Amino acid sequence: MAPQLEPFFKQVDDLSGSFIDRLRKAVAIPSVSAQDENRKDVFKMAQFLASELESLGAEVEQRPLGKQPGKEHLDLPPVVIARYGNDKNKRTILVYGHYDVQPALKEDGWATEPFQLTVDSQGRMYGRGSTDDKGPVLGWLNVIEAHKKAGVDFPVNLLCCFEGMEEYGSEGLEEFIQAESKKFFKDADAVCISDNYWLGTEKPCLTYGLRGCNYYSVSVSGPAQDLHSGVFGGSAHEPMTDLVNVLSKLVDPQGNILIPGIMDLVEPLTEEEKSLYGGISYTMDNLHESLGSETGIHATKERTLMARWRYPSLSIHGVEGAYSAPGAKTVIPAKVIGKFSIRTVPNMESEDVNKLVFDYIKAEFAKLNSKNKLDVWLQHDGKWWVASPKHWNFAAASKAVKQVFGVEPDMTREGGSIPVTLSFEQATGKNVLLLPMGSSTDAAHSINEKLDKRNYIEGIKLLGAYLHYVAEEPMDI
Amino acid sequence: MAPQLEPFFKQVDDLSGSFIDRLRKAVAIPSVSAQDENRKDVFKMAQFLASELESLGAEVEQRPLGKQPGKEHLDLPPVVIARYGNDKNKRTILVYGHYDVQPALKEDGWATEPFQLTVDSQGRMYGRGSTDDKGPVLGWLNVIEAHKKAGVDFPVNLLCCFEGMEEYGSEGLEEFIQAESKKFFKDADAVCISDNYWLGTEKPCLTYGLRGCNYYSVSVSGPAQDLHSGVFGGSAHEPMTDLVNVLSKLVDPQGNILIPGIMDLVEPLTEEEKSLYGGISYTMDNLHESLGSETGIHATKERTLMARWRYPSLSIHGVEGAYSAPGAKTVIPAKVIGKFSIRTVPNMESEDVNKLVFDYIKAEFAKLNSKNKLDVWLQHDGKWWVASPKHWNFAAASKAVKQVFGVEPDMTREGGSIPVTLSFEQATGKNVLLLPMGSSTDAAHSINEKLDKRNYIEGIKLLGAYLHYVAEEPMDI
Repeated sequence: MAPQLEPFFKQVDDLSGSFIDRLRKAVAIPSVSAQDENRKDVFKMAQFLASELESLGAEVEQRPLGKQPGKEHLDLPPVVIARYGNDKNKRTILVYGHYDVQPALKEDGWATEPFQLTVDSQGRMYGRGSTDDKGPVLGWLNVIEAHKKAGVDFPVNLLCCFEGMEEYGSEGLEEFIQAESKKFFKDADAVCISDNYWLGTEKPCLTYGLRGCNYYSVSVSGPAQDLHSGVFGGSAHEPMTDLVNVLSKLVDPQGNILIPGIMDLVEPLTEEEKSLYGGISYTMDNLHESLGSETGIHATKERTLMARWRYPSLSIHGVEGAYSAPGAKTVIPAKVIGKFSIRTVPNMESEDVNKLVFDYIKAEFAKLNSKNKLDVWLQHDGKWWVASPKHWNFAAASKAVKQVFGVEPDMTREGGSIPVTLSFEQATGKNVLLLPMGSSTDAAHSINEKLDKRNYIEGIKLLGAYLHYVAEEPMDI
Repeated sequence: MAPQLEPFFKQVDDLSGSFIDRLRKAVAIPSVSAQDENRKDVFKMAQFLASELESLGAEVEQRPLGKQPGKEHLDLPPVVIARYGNDKNKRTILVYGHYDVQPALKEDGWATEPFQLTVDSQGRMYGRGSTDDKGPVLGWLNVIEAHKKAGVDFPVNLLCCFEGMEEYGSEGLEEFIQAESKKFFKDADAVCISDNYWLGTEKPCLTYGLRGCNYYSVSVSGPAQDLHSGVFGGSAHEPMTDLVNVLSKLVDPQGNILIPGIMDLVEPLTEEEKSLYGGISYTMDNLHESLGSETGIHATKERTLMARWRYPSLSIHGVEGAYSAPGAKTVIPAKVIGKFSIRTVPNMESEDVNKLVFDYIKAEFAKLNSKNKLDVWLQHDGKWWVASPKHWNFAAASKAVKQVFGVEPDMTREGGSIPVTLSFEQATGKNVLLLPMGSSTDAAHSINEKLDKRNYIEGIKLLGAYLHYVAEEPMDI
């Protein structure tokens, strides 16, 4: 065990009631970033965090981000940045979290008041933002407080970056991170983000990879206006017929992408990587439970996790311009736009993927011999991210998990994207670690969001222990 | 020429100013059946028609249809029925039209006030309902007036059936027609409906056929709720992938229905029928103009008209449950419902078509080896209709066209459906003729709806002449 963990751990346990109170106060502020009427609460939450950090002895600033694009009557909430410690002999760790939350109304189906932290007999702490992401954010504050009260020297310099627009596209953050890369963030030796979840409920994980996403639109147009299918059916090329044909050529029902060349871009699976999947705490039952049905494609957990984490996928999201309401309408839509996206993985470069997609779709459309017009374009892209799980940042976190939970963490990736991860990696040039506090059952973004008391309190110990092991790790491996 | 046409024609010309005034009064009543706030105007229009018919000497009733289903605070507008003449030695002709109109607002893009008849220097009479269907309805009233004022004996007994909900699904009419089949309609020897359009602008047509329509839904479902494509893409069967695959198997981009057996149900083309298409006044330019683009499938007008009138077609209308808004959303929809319809022609029986559709779709889905669930069902069907164009009812109309316009009419079908046609045929057991007054450029349902003065005035002569020739035609051919 690293020195001084014992008194820190004991102090966390002693303060657990007040840490839960701190979470209760935070949950009570409805800092919903997506709703104009709650913008004042988002500012209030920023002030709450800043005050708490100041009273703990951190240097704090609330950095304004200007007006909200497209909603110029609203100020963007500030980024709360804080420095705790400034010792050249210590490592400096940058931590990120967000203090805004998803919308929540009791009438959406919550069993409790969403903005009133409610702890049940099993220690489940219900409330909007409990797990996403107020619990983890306060975790860092609680780590500072426990060290102070236990009289334990803080093992690192801590830089905090807490934003208030994460649930609404992190408006303004990317520019802020770039602008501060050589200023506030310049001392960072590594980055730790606690804003995702364990794969299950029992075993913590360290996350070292995320898939990227290239989102495409493909339009087919022909007639100048929508047509009546009685009058024109059979005598005119129908855009929807063509679009459905093109979309059917993208991916097969077993999830195989049919665009030639795409799979050639994917980093081959090594025996070493392959061996990692067997030990991961995940079962096919977990998949079926989260799907709510037994409609998984693959027979094994290993293949399922690979499909989610390390292989690309293609999903067709919908069609714009066609008839989408319930009931019946005999329209031939004049212009329809199919939407699909490809989840990307190493080493798929966006431009290479785009070229393969565009060329293939145009070639498939040409085969249709339709007089309609096709267009295909990229709506947006976000790059995949993979960190080295052998970096000292991960090694420290791994030791901390073993110390606090008594198990080796699952080394995971995620299928979705967390764009801020890549932003911090690019701005600092340092290793980024995703170190989640909550579990897979926490229902972030849903009704009845919760954080288990165990995850919160042991999570505070985990974050603190991580900082201690960080201080001990040798420089480069 | 039939006797007594000359004085009738002259009287129509003499009264043309007052006939246009009658249309002006009718257009000024905004009898929009789809808008609750205009329901009083629909009733006002019924009263206007009833008063005009009474003052012309007809026996008139306004027959209530009860409350509007689903909008019980609204009374359905009445069916205005009228009998003019009751001479056992004359034939009895039942005519149908509707006195309600589509919505219209100046700000939709009308060049003139939509409910103010505005005649331009070229004799185009702009106004909502001018051609659809107030002009034709008043045509019958004008025929009566011209006969009275010219002192010409009315050649037939006339039964009028004018409804006020045609633009909103003819609520209540079907039941009314069935209920009156052995009462008010029992004397009818033939039916004439003036509620469609010439194929072009120069030459009248007689319409003897309509396609039917079978409208289907096909749903694919899997997960219990929508999924995040980052988390689940690649590891779960996606309903949208399966649906797009199934929809792509229904029809090819050249309009060929791919469901085996469907084309075997279609009545073969005879040399006699084939020979009819060449003489029809229609060009590929007409098609391109109405499409607003050169995206027609077929190279010739003959093949184009056959595709529209006498062959089935399959159109894919859209997808319910998938993402249909502008922008980007990385959703995997849990349940998607594709909508498509088949326009049917002789001798496609609905049940036979359904069986072929259901069996084929289920077989194609089975080939996908998906664990998702597929369902397919008929939303609604409406049968095709083809009358004998050699019946005396058509022969009389054909002679009337030649008399008034100096040309043989185009013998046409239509690709769409006019359900009331089949209702009258079934209720009366008599031949039904569609005898349009307006031309292809009248823009019914659109902004700047109009009826050309020539079509209105010569159309009145046509309706009157038709009744005279009806009186002269031998009984059965």
